Amino acid sequence: MATVPYERRAHYHETDQMGVIYHANYIRWFEEARVDFMNQLGLSYKALEEAGVISPVISMHLDYKASVKFDDLVLIYVDLTLFDGVRMSVRYRVADKATGQLKCAGESKHCFINNNGRPMSIKKACPEYYDLYSAAVEINKEYFI
Amino acid sequence: MATVPYERRAHYHETDQMGVIYHANYIRWFEEARVDFMNQLGLSYKALEEAGVISPVISMHLDYKASVKFDDLVLIYVDLTLFDGVRMSVRYRVADKATGQLKCAGESKHCFINNNGRPMSIKKACPEYYDLYSAAVEINKEYFI
Amino acid sequence: MATVPYERRAHYHETDQMGVIYHANYIRWFEEARVDFMNQLGLSYKALEEAGVISPVISMHLDYKASVKFDDLVLIYVDLTLFDGVRMSVRYRVADKATGQLKCAGESKHCFINNNGRPMSIKKACPEYYDLYSAAVEINKEYFI
Amino acid sequence: MATVPYERRAHYHETDQMGVIYHANYIRWFEEARVDFMNQLGLSYKALEEAGVISPVISMHLDYKASVKFDDLVLIYVDLTLFDGVRMSVRYRVADKATGQLKCAGESKHCFINNNGRPMSIKKACPEYYDLYSAAVEINKEYFI
Repeated sequence: MATVPYERRAHYHETDQMGVIYHANYIRWFEEARVDFMNQLGLSYKALEEAGVISPVISMHLDYKASVKFDDLVLIYVDLTLFDGVRMSVRYRVADKATGQLKCAGESKHCFINNNGRPMSIKKACPEYYDLYSAAVEINKEYFI
Repeated sequence: MATVPYERRAHYHETDQMGVIYHANYIRWFEEARVDFMNQLGLSYKALEEAGVISPVISMHLDYKASVKFDDLVLIYVDLTLFDGVRMSVRYRVADKATGQLKCAGESKHCFINNNGRPMSIKKACPEYYDLYSAAVEINKEYFI
Repeated sequence: MATVPYERRAHYHETDQMGVIYHANYIRWFEEARVDFMNQLGLSYKALEEAGVISPVISMHLDYKASVKFDDLVLIYVDLTLFDGVRMSVRYRVADKATGQLKCAGESKHCFINNNGRPMSIKKACPEYYDLYSAAVEINKEYFI
Repeated sequence: MATVPYERRAHYHETDQMGVIYHANYIRWFEEARVDFMNQLGLSYKALEEAGVISPVISMHLDYKASVKFDDLVLIYVDLTLFDGVRMSVRYRVADKATGQLKCAGESKHCFINNNGRPMSIKKACPEYYDLYSAAVEINKEYFI
């Protein structure tokens, strides 16, 4: 039961003087797509934070394949590759909506901490999230073949 | 006893595809210069927040006079035009360091609220800030003639 | 024949440590909504730039009425208040989609320059744009009563 | 003959609602430090672009070790790990200025293209840059032990 890719228009304020979308913005797009993915699963990132769970990024990797230009429409595909309640890995593909051309691929790794900055286990703290995210691992793997 | 203007280099990531610094970034520069101004006064914005005082922006005005380009050095002049413990007004001038050319002028207006979002009076809550900022009104007025 | 307001979700990366959308981001939202408005009119900002016309911002004013939080949905209303081929003024209202509460109001003023940075008249250079934008002045005025 | 690390204050506008510097900003800090490193070498990135050379990012990796907070001062260490005129690799360390604590480590990979987007060899196009950057490989390796 795959989720729908996140659709995004490239904004003027995201360009730089090379005339393309500035490369740091893809991290923001990944995040928007990850939040949208979680909203589609039915337990949102906002609700997770309100439940006292914060999921900082431990590492980030991006491979830039082709530039995106102002006003282009892209689709961002997201897949959970790991979720064990303590760590989470997410991969991403940004592709041009019109042509399907791959623009950027990436992966982020996350842990879970509480409001005091202490590591926490989602399995204990929020079993409903644990079940939901565990069941969602690789539901979008067909997008990444 | 004027403060020293805030010196800032224009970064590549702040440009847009017009080849100049993107216009929203001046609000960020104003903030950096305002924070630096407060640090120079001796009671920093960080300390103010740690004391439970938040100063959201009520309004902002910017007049764009000339573009700033990547790697340019600018000086940002800041002056308090109003401070009564409940409201604060700050004006700004961004000028090229090398030529003195005016790039952008602006003004921001602020109020003070506590962590619950309620309006507060600095005079009651933090008398030392009140005295310090009250004494700083128009100390940099010679930069704005 | 009014245009449709621009719908926008507030992103996590747009928050600051006050826990609300950082105030400079409204300038970006205004721009997105202005570009969307021009796309709806049928002659896009992208096409305008490709025709050699650049419309830098001369001034910007923002009144912040209430904070927007992560994951909120807002509607951004745009109206042309002036267009004479040499100058353009645009006003904006950002309102919560669910409640209608006004979050931010603003106005930007623009001129038109060519790729050499010289002022230009849209009426001469791009008569089709001139006719289109002239006819669009105040088509959304009912949103601003 | 090592270069001096790049000193940077963390700005309020770079925080997010976790109360720390938002993780995409480290890419911007890396860039600022890379530009500063090139300026210190004596042939700046600005001059490189003016000579018709663009160096887009091919890949980026970041390991987040500890959070940086508003108003913190960090030092950013930069080292060229590869430069052959066609490709360039750069590594980074962001450390707290006061304590030396490592905050973030990363690496970016770049190619060189001309204004038409075609790959180019710096050795042929800009021999002075080639000599300068070739000689600078690992001049800062002691920072990365």
